[in-house]
Amino acid sequence: MSGKDKITPSILPGFMELLPNDQLAFNRMLDSIRESFELCGFMPLDTPVIEKAEILMTKGGEETEKQTYSFKKGDNDLALRFDLTVPFSRYVSQRMNELSFPFKRYQIGKVFRGERPQKGRFREFYQCDIDIVNKDNLSLVYDAEIISTAYTTFERLNIGGFLIKINNRKLLAGFVEELGLSEKISKILREIDKKDRIGEDNVRKELDNISCTPEQIDKLMNYLNTEGTPDKILKALASCNIKNETFQIGLTEMEELTKYLGFMNIPASCWKIDLSIARGLDYYTGTVFETVLKKYPEFGSVCGGGRYDNLAEYFTEQKLPGVGVSIGLTRLFDQLNEKGLIKNDKATTSRVAVLPLGDYFEIGYGLVSNLRNSNIAAEVLIAGDGLKKKLSIVSKKGIRFAAILGENEIKNKVITVKDMETGKQEEVYFEKIVDYITKI
Amino acid sequence: MSGKDKITPSILPGFMELLPNDQLAFNRMLDSIRESFELCGFMPLDTPVIEKAEILMTKGGEETEKQTYSFKKGDNDLALRFDLTVPFSRYVSQRMNELSFPFKRYQIGKVFRGERPQKGRFREFYQCDIDIVNKDNLSLVYDAEIISTAYTTFERLNIGGFLIKINNRKLLAGFVEELGLSEKISKILREIDKKDRIGEDNVRKELDNISCTPEQIDKLMNYLNTEGTPDKILKALASCNIKNETFQIGLTEMEELTKYLGFMNIPASCWKIDLSIARGLDYYTGTVFETVLKKYPEFGSVCGGGRYDNLAEYFTEQKLPGVGVSIGLTRLFDQLNEKGLIKNDKATTSRVAVLPLGDYFEIGYGLVSNLRNSNIAAEVLIAGDGLKKKLSIVSKKGIRFAAILGENEIKNKVITVKDMETGKQEEVYFEKIVDYITKI
Repeated sequence: MSGKDKITPSILPGFMELLPNDQLAFNRMLDSIRESFELCGFMPLDTPVIEKAEILMTKGGEETEKQTYSFKKGDNDLALRFDLTVPFSRYVSQRMNELSFPFKRYQIGKVFRGERPQKGRFREFYQCDIDIVNKDNLSLVYDAEIISTAYTTFERLNIGGFLIKINNRKLLAGFVEELGLSEKISKILREIDKKDRIGEDNVRKELDNISCTPEQIDKLMNYLNTEGTPDKILKALASCNIKNETFQIGLTEMEELTKYLGFMNIPASCWKIDLSIARGLDYYTGTVFETVLKKYPEFGSVCGGGRYDNLAEYFTEQKLPGVGVSIGLTRLFDQLNEKGLIKNDKATTSRVAVLPLGDYFEIGYGLVSNLRNSNIAAEVLIAGDGLKKKLSIVSKKGIRFAAILGENEIKNKVITVKDMETGKQEEVYFEKIVDYITKI
Repeated sequence: MSGKDKITPSILPGFMELLPNDQLAFNRMLDSIRESFELCGFMPLDTPVIEKAEILMTKGGEETEKQTYSFKKGDNDLALRFDLTVPFSRYVSQRMNELSFPFKRYQIGKVFRGERPQKGRFREFYQCDIDIVNKDNLSLVYDAEIISTAYTTFERLNIGGFLIKINNRKLLAGFVEELGLSEKISKILREIDKKDRIGEDNVRKELDNISCTPEQIDKLMNYLNTEGTPDKILKALASCNIKNETFQIGLTEMEELTKYLGFMNIPASCWKIDLSIARGLDYYTGTVFETVLKKYPEFGSVCGGGRYDNLAEYFTEQKLPGVGVSIGLTRLFDQLNEKGLIKNDKATTSRVAVLPLGDYFEIGYGLVSNLRNSNIAAEVLIAGDGLKKKLSIVSKKGIRFAAILGENEIKNKVITVKDMETGKQEEVYFEKIVDYITKI
């Protein structure tokens, strides 16, 4: 093949692809999330990336449809999933008689959205979802379980302080109704949702634009800004004398949820009631919440979710209330990496590199297979001439132990193990190498 | 939404979707493969599912193109990857200056082929690949490392005895040349490749059809059926007086590879030289191998790979020889599951279920968070009225320990832990529960 025929290797804009050390760090985050989900009793689920277009398009509005990758193969209209929720609702409806309820599942996988590419937005990204659904009705204790799992997950991710802000959509809707603004509710909620991004003054202007009175705006802002401990907020809400029924149901739900959260040992510093959390309009019906990183509010919500009345209404008459949460991992990783917060100093998974300074492959590979048999990741480092060069490769790869095998070592049936972290160096008998590494 | 509007939930034919307990078993296999790859020092890689069509179509023949899911979005011609090798070769060419060589990477992900659906064939399936590539040249010791990693992987998968059959394409090509059949080589290799499936007699007929003489056919069959230990086969090959240069290079390579395999402590029962392994024609240039399960030869090759001269010839002038192996996990899982060989008795990841026999959520969730904080997966079992019903759910879910919390327990600050495997039942103080479970 001549040079002229070469194709320039490149990927599409808006697709993330990492170097190996970053990929390892990404996978470790993904593993940590998965372990947290399993620790909390969620079962794995995997659905196809490609589904019938009519299934995936059921729920989407025009915007979703425009962003969906859809195509024909033969006579079939196909599409790539744009979230994990629609496939989950299809799955539960389809397998209803084979599943046991309440059904707790997690799913981690790529979803696809043909958005206009822009910084921090991806067209292909990992979503990490958990949901609990039940037939007919679902106790509020499961809302608390979902929030508690989000807490466990972020605690174990170990990326700094975070705050789960919790609200109930019925409180917000009821309050707006009580103000006599029911007809404008969807517009109002959309503006409230922007508050953290555009600031209170701009929200006031927007509300003024849609003809809310100054008094209504003041009352609403006053309400949204109610601050304090969960108990204090709940007491304030109970005493503010709002008759609206939706509001009262929301209040009861929030009191119950708060009680359950108390049972689950979530530190008070990690969650609060925030009456301004709205999270879009159409989907959620009760509890809603968002998580922010305390040090990086500019990341926005890194994990959000809530309660929905009926997961599978497009597919079945069976009522399936649910509650869930989603982490957009690709974006979160990208944001953390941009701030230099990702530890990506490993260029291999190995813990031990055996360095043969000569034609000692037989002994080198023998030692390596002993280590691997004891679950210690190890490799023979053939590359690099001379000890100095080899040690610099070991250091660059981020391998903890260099096990040097030279003429003297062969003669004495030992290997010189150098701890690259401490610089300490010791001779170890061949048959003791596994013990030696295991004990450190 | 009225009943008439419901959409029947279903997926496309040829796509695998599992129930949660099967999914858990599938993930455990996938994890085991991944752990083996990392144990042997391979780094993870993840490439986009969607790439530019011109990139993915570089290598494919007509058949590949017909099977590829391709589509337009805006002005772009896009396609879904049909293997992990083309994206890997694109990746290495693109990132050549940022990678260190030899580059050992693994990739586990879904690939997509719009084949006619048939039993045991999937249109979306997981491939688990490892490859080692280097600039300019690559020692044969890496061929042995790949085979040794395949050995480690199947050993740890624990799905029964397996046999890695190893050959060298140069031996086969050289022998056919020596017979004076060079012009028919691609047809002949295609027939040889079918030998395990259609039997020797049918291969003889096919060779007769393409005008090989009876003498040529006899010699070829004789050669392909050479049996024995690696040493014995190598000696037979060395003494059979074939001058052909390709054959002689193949023999030298095989001798060297065999020596390295000896260094790597792979039991003799797990590998052999099989002179009839061909593995297609265009791709591989030296070492080739296939793995079969001893008890289930009808599964065919469950893991195959080999050496190729130049991974990235479509993208760069840089010569990048490589060696790799691929496991088609979706199909393997399906085959094992069909034989009833998959252990799928867990309907949850939890090890402990706390059973509150009354409104004891506070203590129940408190115990569960203590367990989770100590990395013990646990859940509160709210579903099911009465102890009997609850215990039957615990048993159905495959949870090892039922921790019963009734009136008496609350009074005495203990929990009754029942080991569902042994039937043994003990009272444990609240604060001792983590210790108790950890020690079992």
